[in-house]
Amino acid sequence: MNRGVLLVRRPEGKVTEDCFELRDRPVPDPGPGQVLTRNLVLSCDPYLRGRMDAAFPLGEVVTVRVVARVEASQHARWKVGDLVWGFLGWEEWSVTAGEGLWPVDPALGPISNFVSVLGMPGLTAWVGMVELGHPAPGESVLVSSAAGAVGSLAGQLARLAGARVVGTVGSPDKARHITETLGFHAAIEYRAAADLATAVRQALPGGVDVYFENVGGALLEAVLPNLADHARIPVCGMISGYELLGDPGVKGLVNLLAKRATMTGFSIYDHVYRLAPYQRTMSELLASGRVVYAEDIWEGIDAVPAAFIGMLAGDNIGKRLVRLAPEA
Amino acid sequence: MNRGVLLVRRPEGKVTEDCFELRDRPVPDPGPGQVLTRNLVLSCDPYLRGRMDAAFPLGEVVTVRVVARVEASQHARWKVGDLVWGFLGWEEWSVTAGEGLWPVDPALGPISNFVSVLGMPGLTAWVGMVELGHPAPGESVLVSSAAGAVGSLAGQLARLAGARVVGTVGSPDKARHITETLGFHAAIEYRAAADLATAVRQALPGGVDVYFENVGGALLEAVLPNLADHARIPVCGMISGYELLGDPGVKGLVNLLAKRATMTGFSIYDHVYRLAPYQRTMSELLASGRVVYAEDIWEGIDAVPAAFIGMLAGDNIGKRLVRLAPEA
Repeated sequence: MNRGVLLVRRPEGKVTEDCFELRDRPVPDPGPGQVLTRNLVLSCDPYLRGRMDAAFPLGEVVTVRVVARVEASQHARWKVGDLVWGFLGWEEWSVTAGEGLWPVDPALGPISNFVSVLGMPGLTAWVGMVELGHPAPGESVLVSSAAGAVGSLAGQLARLAGARVVGTVGSPDKARHITETLGFHAAIEYRAAADLATAVRQALPGGVDVYFENVGGALLEAVLPNLADHARIPVCGMISGYELLGDPGVKGLVNLLAKRATMTGFSIYDHVYRLAPYQRTMSELLASGRVVYAEDIWEGIDAVPAAFIGMLAGDNIGKRLVRLAPEA
Repeated sequence: MNRGVLLVRRPEGKVTEDCFELRDRPVPDPGPGQVLTRNLVLSCDPYLRGRMDAAFPLGEVVTVRVVARVEASQHARWKVGDLVWGFLGWEEWSVTAGEGLWPVDPALGPISNFVSVLGMPGLTAWVGMVELGHPAPGESVLVSSAAGAVGSLAGQLARLAGARVVGTVGSPDKARHITETLGFHAAIEYRAAADLATAVRQALPGGVDVYFENVGGALLEAVLPNLADHARIPVCGMISGYELLGDPGVKGLVNLLAKRATMTGFSIYDHVYRLAPYQRTMSELLASGRVVYAEDIWEGIDAVPAAFIGMLAGDNIGKRLVRLAPEA
């Protein structure tokens, strides 16, 4: 049987366990051009939350990025035993078009990395920080969700570019993780800060040259008056608003004008073609120890709803994943 | 005697006439390195409003851009009779350092143009629209304050780039001006619109590729959900907030992410070095009739407070100026 996690109710604000149903169905057979995979590692990504409002159909398995092994193939490109990643689902087995799969090269890193640091979350950090933020030596960089899947890498890329890097985090454990393990220069525990704008000013007294935006809302409001001239704000996500029923608005946008700052939303889907060269570069940075990356891996399909809900609440250090089966 | 307009009270929200005092003082003599000018055309710019909150000292003449004629000079560069522009003041005569003046070449256009279309307001429209907005043929462009000093030119530059251009204006007169005289394709009268976001969607049904931001606030909120993918928002001003005592915040910023849009604040002071080549280009566009530019000129120093206050309320079509004396 093939157990999967179906979206059965649209969340009203916060996602709750009863939005999902675990259901066993027969393992499907691949048709012409299709591939049957045994799913090995499932991703839990913040962006899925937005899709649950409308884009994902009700009563179907949630589509996510998955690392998998080919178990049967009617597609010329793939053969049994191949390791792949693609948009499959929160389920143990998937059937999909062969065109929707990409190769996983275990020589570049652990296979789980292909939905984390060697996958789209990693490329997101690279594009946002390196290409849109372009931190320079001596500049000051603030990364929100700094212990998370994207922020933890974005901050290290700014450090490697010679910038001083501060991360915002939600707990003392995360603060220790980013400063002691990841090499951030300082952490702001936003829940402990009496006043966020003051905390940002104290941590980055010369102003914020790059703000890597994962959060939005009150944190963005705290950053805007602290921007340095010509600041860059790559907008990767605004997770603080994803579970709100209304949009309270953001004050202080006039600081974009006063500081001649640039705020740029981006989607990694515009950059997918650059994944392969990115994977080679990042694989070397990881192998040399210049970049460290944490995965927060839960076990078994039944764990998926709680793993996802907890990630939205920020209980993860590093990339939240769920492992269903070993690689071999 | 030298009559000038002094800032004597900081505005609380709206600027009122009692923020200013007209005062007669003796015409000063230039010291070593200084130049005495007879001021011919004074500018009334929206950005002055922000400076009245703190930057401008109380009890002194308000510093603005002025076209003037040199009447006495102790500076090697300038001689009696030279036409110049510079940051002088809302006054009939000024004494200033010779380094703070730039030449006015009457061959390029009427001298008043040097504080309007051939001056910083014109260069502002150019940098914002051409270099940050970079409209492409077939794209859809929305310009706010489209009958104003900067917006009226920004929209025409987008039209010359082959875009379809819609402007927001505050009256039927202005709507006629931008469509019949300036060649905008359509106008949105924001005061007449039942719902601004609907009005924007109807006027630009394929989405807004470039939004030239002069206004902020409710208009920005109406534009954000109507952005096209990869939209650009050059932020030239946010005049709607200049006279507000609080900042109500802007909703819908998450659209920057969803549409992969870029919002860029800029200051023309970063681009001053490009004024001379800009003036040559724009002079040709004006001479050929490809660009049309309106000036809204009041007469006499006593008119300055009302001219400025009215401009903040949007009573101008084109660049609001005050003429003190003829050129020769």
